[in-house]
Amino acid sequence: MKNKLYNLLIEASPHLKKEFVPSISIDCVVFGFHDTTLKVLLIKLHNSEAWGLPGGYLKKDEDLDKSANRILKERTGAKNIFLNQFKTYGKKNRSEFFFKDYPDDLWHKQRFISIAYYALIDYKTVTPIIDGISDGCEWKEISELPDLMMDHQQIFDEALLQLRRDLNYKPVGLNLLPEKFTMPELQKLYEIILDKKLNRGNFYRKMTRYGILEKLNETRKGGAHKAPDLYKFDLEKYNSALENGLQESW
Amino acid sequence: MKNKLYNLLIEASPHLKKEFVPSISIDCVVFGFHDTTLKVLLIKLHNSEAWGLPGGYLKKDEDLDKSANRILKERTGAKNIFLNQFKTYGKKNRSEFFFKDYPDDLWHKQRFISIAYYALIDYKTVTPIIDGISDGCEWKEISELPDLMMDHQQIFDEALLQLRRDLNYKPVGLNLLPEKFTMPELQKLYEIILDKKLNRGNFYRKMTRYGILEKLNETRKGGAHKAPDLYKFDLEKYNSALENGLQESW
Repeated sequence: MKNKLYNLLIEASPHLKKEFVPSISIDCVVFGFHDTTLKVLLIKLHNSEAWGLPGGYLKKDEDLDKSANRILKERTGAKNIFLNQFKTYGKKNRSEFFFKDYPDDLWHKQRFISIAYYALIDYKTVTPIIDGISDGCEWKEISELPDLMMDHQQIFDEALLQLRRDLNYKPVGLNLLPEKFTMPELQKLYEIILDKKLNRGNFYRKMTRYGILEKLNETRKGGAHKAPDLYKFDLEKYNSALENGLQESW
Repeated sequence: MKNKLYNLLIEASPHLKKEFVPSISIDCVVFGFHDTTLKVLLIKLHNSEAWGLPGGYLKKDEDLDKSANRILKERTGAKNIFLNQFKTYGKKNRSEFFFKDYPDDLWHKQRFISIAYYALIDYKTVTPIIDGISDGCEWKEISELPDLMMDHQQIFDEALLQLRRDLNYKPVGLNLLPEKFTMPELQKLYEIILDKKLNRGNFYRKMTRYGILEKLNETRKGGAHKAPDLYKFDLEKYNSALENGLQESW
C-alpha cells in the first residue's frame, strides 16, 4: 500500500490543511467537442486503476468560481474556460472509502462535499498537462468511459444531463463550430450532444425562431448536394441569449 | 451588542462545532403559491433588522439532501417538501461580515459555503414555526421583499430564475392547483411564476403538446363566459416528465 501515491499524499497533507477550506472539494466535467465526437477530460492518479474527474480544493482566501478555474488550469493546462456550476454532491460516504487504507488524519480522508462544474469546449484548443499526483490526463470518448472513482460516474452523468437541459435555454456552438457554418453542421452538434437524431425541418424552424443566427450571402461549395447556405452567430443576440435565455423559453 | 441573539450564539457555538461539518451551510428558498400570489418563506433572527432565508448546517453523519429537509422542517415546520438543489454560493466574504462583532472562534463566524435549494408549494399547506433564534417566520410577497441579510437577495433572485428556467423542462402545477382545473387557471399559474402575460393560443398548443394533461368531459360552470373545459394531470405522464423532461425539450 505504501506506494508513490501514498507517499505523496502523506507528505502533502499538513500543507493542504493550512491552505484549504476543510470539507470542500471541486470537480470539473470538461466536455470536448471536435468534428463529430464528444469527449470528456479525465485524469488517472498514480497507483490507481480508476480514472477520475479533474478536481481539487478551495483556498481559504479564494472565491469558489475562481477556485474551479485555477484547479482546472493546474491539473489539465486548460485556461480561460467558462465553467458552469451545476450541482453539489454530499452523500455522507462519497469520498472516504477511496482513502480507507490511509491514516485517519490524512487531509484527503475527511468528509468532502464536492461542488461540480461543467464546461463545453473545442478539445483541439487544449493540451492536457499531467500534474504531480497523476499518471494520465486524457480526452476519453463519452461512449467508452473507463471505470470512474468514487461517485464520479454519477457526477459525469448528471453533468451530461444538465448540458442537454441547458440546450433548452442557452445557445451553444460559438467556439465549437467554424465562424461560418451550415444549418446541418449546427444540427449535427446538437445531435451529438443529445445523442439522438433531430428532425431537419423542426430544427431549422426552432433555430430560426431563436433569432441568434445571421444568414450570409454565401453557400458552402464542394459537396455532392446543392450548396447549403452559410450562417454565423449574431454575437450580440447570442450573448444576450446566454444572459437572458433563448426566446423559445417561456 | 451583547443582546439575546449574541448570547444564544455564543452558548450554541461549542455544540455546533461538535455536531456539524465545518464550512458548509444550507439555505432554502421556499416559494409558496396560492390563488394568484407567489410568496417566499423568510425568517428574522432576534435583534436583527434584516430578514433571511431559512438555513442551517450539515450534520457530520447526514446526507446533504436529508439535511436540507431536516433544516426546513426544524426552522419552519414545513415537512415532506421536495427541494431542488440549484446552486452553491462561495464568495470568500459572503458570511463573515454579518458576524463581525462576534468573537473569532464563534462557529457562525467561519467561512461558510452555502448550498441552496428551492421548492414550490401551496403555502396554505404550511404553518410556519418560529425557532429558538428567530423572532419571525413568515410568508412574504415576492414583489415586496424586505431587506435580506448577507447574499440572500442574490440567492433568492437566482432561485426564482432557476424556477422559471425549470418550467422549460419540468411540469408544474400538481399540488398547487385543484385536482380539476381549467386551461386559463393553469396559464395563470405560469404567468404568476414568470411574471408576464402569455399568449392564450400558444399556451394551449404548448401545453397540449406536452402530453401531461387529461381533458375531462366536464366544464367549469358558473362564470360569465362560456363554461371552460376542465383538465387534470395524467399522473403517470406528469411524473415521467418530471423524471425525463418535457417532450417539448430538444
